[in-house]
Amino acid sequence: MVNSSESAAFLYGMDPFNFSTISSTQEDPVCVLWGCELTRGAKTFVFEVQNDLLEHQLFIKTICLGAEAKDELHVVEVEAKITQNDRPVPIASLRPSVLPMVSFYGLELMPPVTFNLRSGEGPVYISGQHLVCEC
Amino acid sequence: MVNSSESAAFLYGMDPFNFSTISSTQEDPVCVLWGCELTRGAKTFVFEVQNDLLEHQLFIKTICLGAEAKDELHVVEVEAKITQNDRPVPIASLRPSVLPMVSFYGLELMPPVTFNLRSGEGPVYISGQHLVCEC
Amino acid sequence: MVNSSESAAFLYGMDPFNFSTISSTQEDPVCVLWGCELTRGAKTFVFEVQNDLLEHQLFIKTICLGAEAKDELHVVEVEAKITQNDRPVPIASLRPSVLPMVSFYGLELMPPVTFNLRSGEGPVYISGQHLVCEC
Amino acid sequence: MVNSSESAAFLYGMDPFNFSTISSTQEDPVCVLWGCELTRGAKTFVFEVQNDLLEHQLFIKTICLGAEAKDELHVVEVEAKITQNDRPVPIASLRPSVLPMVSFYGLELMPPVTFNLRSGEGPVYISGQHLVCEC
Amino acid sequence: MVNSSESAAFLYGMDPFNFSTISSTQEDPVCVLWGCELTRGAKTFVFEVQNDLLEHQLFIKTICLGAEAKDELHVVEVEAKITQNDRPVPIASLRPSVLPMVSFYGLELMPPVTFNLRSGEGPVYISGQHLVCEC
Repeated sequence: MVNSSESAAFLYGMDPFNFSTISSTQEDPVCVLWGCELTRGAKTFVFEVQNDLLEHQLFIKTICLGAEAKDELHVVEVEAKITQNDRPVPIASLRPSVLPMVSFYGLELMPPVTFNLRSGEGPVYISGQHLVCEC
Repeated sequence: MVNSSESAAFLYGMDPFNFSTISSTQEDPVCVLWGCELTRGAKTFVFEVQNDLLEHQLFIKTICLGAEAKDELHVVEVEAKITQNDRPVPIASLRPSVLPMVSFYGLELMPPVTFNLRSGEGPVYISGQHLVCEC
Repeated sequence: MVNSSESAAFLYGMDPFNFSTISSTQEDPVCVLWGCELTRGAKTFVFEVQNDLLEHQLFIKTICLGAEAKDELHVVEVEAKITQNDRPVPIASLRPSVLPMVSFYGLELMPPVTFNLRSGEGPVYISGQHLVCEC
Repeated sequence: MVNSSESAAFLYGMDPFNFSTISSTQEDPVCVLWGCELTRGAKTFVFEVQNDLLEHQLFIKTICLGAEAKDELHVVEVEAKITQNDRPVPIASLRPSVLPMVSFYGLELMPPVTFNLRSGEGPVYISGQHLVCEC
Repeated sequence: MVNSSESAAFLYGMDPFNFSTISSTQEDPVCVLWGCELTRGAKTFVFEVQNDLLEHQLFIKTICLGAEAKDELHVVEVEAKITQNDRPVPIASLRPSVLPMVSFYGLELMPPVTFNLRSGEGPVYISGQHLVCEC
């Protein structure tokens, strides 16, 4: 779990204590590269953040299969705090010999969010951008 | 069918009664993860909302085939309250051995909207984002 | 050819005569789901609108092959009133066994626009969004 | 090479001399459908514009293979006036039996820009939007 | 490593000393076409910029395999100065006979950024846009 203020500081290559000067402008949220991995041994990943009074958003950008993935359909589903119809929502169906990756415009999710490997054994890599602002 | 005000409240992790403080800013619509499933037994899904004086939009993000889908072309069509040429509009053609999923920038639809599995037996999963605002 | 004011009215589920109250705000254009079909028997479709003093835009969102399409390359080309180099512009190459559909961010076109099936016999389905505003 | 002011005029179906009334608003740039073709006989295409004091941008939207393309990998590269590392940049790798087309969100390029067919004999079709404004 | 002020100048085809007149408007950042190549001999590429008091962003647009790439899965991973979970993040899985390229909406990265060919021997081409502004 990232410490947003420090990230922001490093991200802009300056003193952590200046963080407020950044996020105080709603136009300029702090953006951190994010990634997780789902495998047979760890089929679920929970993205959550500290209760730090900041607004956090996760934009999923890509889901990729690893070179070791078996030739089977891998289905990734996501569950947010509020999901309509109260069920996990599949967002990707990938297979090494057919479609090894997908690129998203940016599926916006608000933490806490749970990613689950519904089918397949992975490895499956999810990449995205974690935005933080004082909105 | 989601109760928008409660969703909004949970989404932001606070008291439902504070909902008005959120949606009163047109810049900050409430966004809920949405999903539905189309199968041989339930080839049609209707997305509709309460007449709650709020503006609702659905942005389709992905359409994925399930691991059990047969190797046939699955065609998903959509029908909105107003559709030009008065016919359902196909928006996806997927096949497990060729293209098991598609990612959209965000096909904007206004409820009520009907999704129908025109070809194939599924399961087909549709994901999206349900935006609610007091625009 | 859609009657924009009526569509707008239905779209918002209210009295057609209130249309002006909607489109008078440039921020809130009216958006209608649009679709057309290209087949061996009807390889060309012309998208045009009434001379209604409104600004019309068409955003192409998806092009999909139908389940009956033969396994050949289908090439869809488009011609706008003004096209550079004065030639139709191919925008999609699809084949059932290779790539049965494509999703666009939104190819913006201004009517009148002509879609033509340059190769293949279809059916090919084109979906999009027809925006109307009093810009 | 397009004569921007005339295109703009035709685009809005009015007298060329009224062009200034359009492009004078930075919010409303003029958008012209653009396309070019790369083949064995013409592997290079240069997109350039008149020195007309207007700002020109080209947004690449799709790259498609033609029905006559051989089953080989077609690599399209682009070179702008300023390209980092001073080398052409490959932006597409397509093959009829694997991936016959690609859709872009919109790769922004500023003229003069050179497209070159680095591998393959085409035909390869590039589509895009040519924006012109008095920014 | 690009000298941003000169690039900006050339980009607009004018005297380098006029650069400040461009980037002084936050609305109009300078955009330079960017590309790099990953191969067996050079599996890593570092994108970094001078400490020039300007804000730099890199938007990844496409990742393509070269015609010489072997038929194996190529996995490209990226590492930013701040990456959550402190691990490189895979952003692409490509294979010549399955998926030879991918198009992104624009994965935003802030220098310094390291691209690494985790699997496969390439050549792999990464294209993007390097934005510079005085934000």
